[in-house]
Amino acid sequence: MHNIVFTREVGKELRNRIEGVNASDIFILVDNNSQNYCLNHLELEMILPDHIITISEGENNKSLENLAHIWEVLSRCGARRNSLFINIGGGIVSDIGGFAASCFKRGIPCINIPTTLLSQVDASVGGKTGINFAGLKNEIGTFSIPECVIIDNRFLKTLSIRQQLSGFAEMLKHALLMGEDHLEEMLQVDLSDVSSDAFLPLIEKSVAIKSAIVENDPLEKGIRKALNLGHTIGHAIESIAIEKGLDIYHGDAVAYGMIGALYLSVKKLGFDKKQYKSICAFIRSKYPAYKAITTPEELYELMLHDKKNESAGVNFSLLRKPGEVEINQYCHREEVLEALNQI
Amino acid sequence: MHNIVFTREVGKELRNRIEGVNASDIFILVDNNSQNYCLNHLELEMILPDHIITISEGENNKSLENLAHIWEVLSRCGARRNSLFINIGGGIVSDIGGFAASCFKRGIPCINIPTTLLSQVDASVGGKTGINFAGLKNEIGTFSIPECVIIDNRFLKTLSIRQQLSGFAEMLKHALLMGEDHLEEMLQVDLSDVSSDAFLPLIEKSVAIKSAIVENDPLEKGIRKALNLGHTIGHAIESIAIEKGLDIYHGDAVAYGMIGALYLSVKKLGFDKKQYKSICAFIRSKYPAYKAITTPEELYELMLHDKKNESAGVNFSLLRKPGEVEINQYCHREEVLEALNQI
Repeated sequence: MHNIVFTREVGKELRNRIEGVNASDIFILVDNNSQNYCLNHLELEMILPDHIITISEGENNKSLENLAHIWEVLSRCGARRNSLFINIGGGIVSDIGGFAASCFKRGIPCINIPTTLLSQVDASVGGKTGINFAGLKNEIGTFSIPECVIIDNRFLKTLSIRQQLSGFAEMLKHALLMGEDHLEEMLQVDLSDVSSDAFLPLIEKSVAIKSAIVENDPLEKGIRKALNLGHTIGHAIESIAIEKGLDIYHGDAVAYGMIGALYLSVKKLGFDKKQYKSICAFIRSKYPAYKAITTPEELYELMLHDKKNESAGVNFSLLRKPGEVEINQYCHREEVLEALNQI
Repeated sequence: MHNIVFTREVGKELRNRIEGVNASDIFILVDNNSQNYCLNHLELEMILPDHIITISEGENNKSLENLAHIWEVLSRCGARRNSLFINIGGGIVSDIGGFAASCFKRGIPCINIPTTLLSQVDASVGGKTGINFAGLKNEIGTFSIPECVIIDNRFLKTLSIRQQLSGFAEMLKHALLMGEDHLEEMLQVDLSDVSSDAFLPLIEKSVAIKSAIVENDPLEKGIRKALNLGHTIGHAIESIAIEKGLDIYHGDAVAYGMIGALYLSVKKLGFDKKQYKSICAFIRSKYPAYKAITTPEELYELMLHDKKNESAGVNFSLLRKPGEVEINQYCHREEVLEALNQI
């Protein structure tokens, strides 16, 4: 994680980095929220107003239309190969902005400033970029590592509780992949102020867990699939939510997905049932109750389309116990439908 | 060039490769021409008809619309990460098809079967993919190396003389970068049957020259720019030609561009004037006469937008003599306009 910086002085750090890159010009992508709450903290008066590109917040804006819009602005303003592209916002901004930058003139340098807990612990690491397409999440994208990622958790002060919990679901996932001790730490953690000085080391720890996995398998041929824990079901729920315009956050969907994955872990790999129940109870106490948004059958069909599925059946990452993951656990239709009925 | 195969038995070679890849399913991209003249030579009866995607021939089809169309077909047909994507056609097919494959689910494996001389000696090597955007050639794309490239020059039999010459311009460029001896060989070569057994080794030699350069600098940070010889002006001419729907081939534009670049080489690097004149005479004897399609000033403006230009002035690759290239030769407006008046 040599290109990820943890700081409480994001503005100063960014200006240093900009000087280091020696860019011919700078473009910034923000969404409504990061434009209102984050951009003015960064003292970037030198950026030309027409070099600031704003997209609307929300998953359905990670679209081909917005991608083309970003490319149009870059082209119209004469961006060059050594122009610098800065993403300021949540994962939607860094996903679409990172994708746009990775393809513009076959790649221009990019700096990410994640401003939500979710993007700080998840989208900040691993170089995945992309857009949603044909109703499927991240159907189109690249692997592209930014020049650097600057993480300052003071930005998290303006997040709603639900946004904070959305990010925390990924921290919980990382803890499940790490082992008993860190899992226990996360189940006890004080979530009352994720923007505090004291919370920053927890973000750093969570990022370190993901980084270690990604560095072993940058192109997701093997062990990186561990990070898919909870996402097989989670992505399917999210796809439906996007399609229907429902108010379900990524972390909500992942949390529900983890219940399903842990249920399958109990069934197939002997994950401790008591521990499963206590994690489920924790999730149910924090996250909004899952409302059936479609039939289990339709969710199963969507999962078959997920890019991690390479052959018949649905490919899950499951746990023997916290810290012991098994990837490529193919589950058949009946098993999956049963798991979906638990969430 | 370990992943490039030269053969006179493309069908057999392809079937071997397909078996080696062990793909869940196969998609093929062709254009009208390669569909009519090449596809039936390959005995690919096992491919589902709706997995064969056809685009119209011509540079203006390397568009965002066609890119989205390819992604739609892949998505609709349930393509997976280990689906195989095969490009059969000229550089337009492998550029847009390679780009589509490199981004679909963040990258699926791809085999290229170039069927024009131009794509065999140029687009086959180096992993550049892309589409035209906002009137600029290859404005959007990726660097992505295919699993393998299969080159069979029997496909060249159905090419028009102009298509053959278009490819030959790149061979001439490679010879200029290689040195006196190979340049002499190219200026004397028999172009009456580029589909012959005897011509295949010349294609292989040309590919080897490009490969050696690309392998030293895959992301075009330095010496790969040598391959830009003739392309700074050539791309600008081509951009205008695309915009106006004019009948100018890539190789024509590169040939004109080489006249300009060699003129600048004489002026700035002492390239031998007599040799410059004899190469010009060769080009003028083979290629259609250049008709001014716009003002030199407009061409200059377009060159400033070229992705290889990193700062003020236009960045050329020029020659001291055949085999001695100098990259990053910045030329100012008056020099460029003077060179444009020579072509």
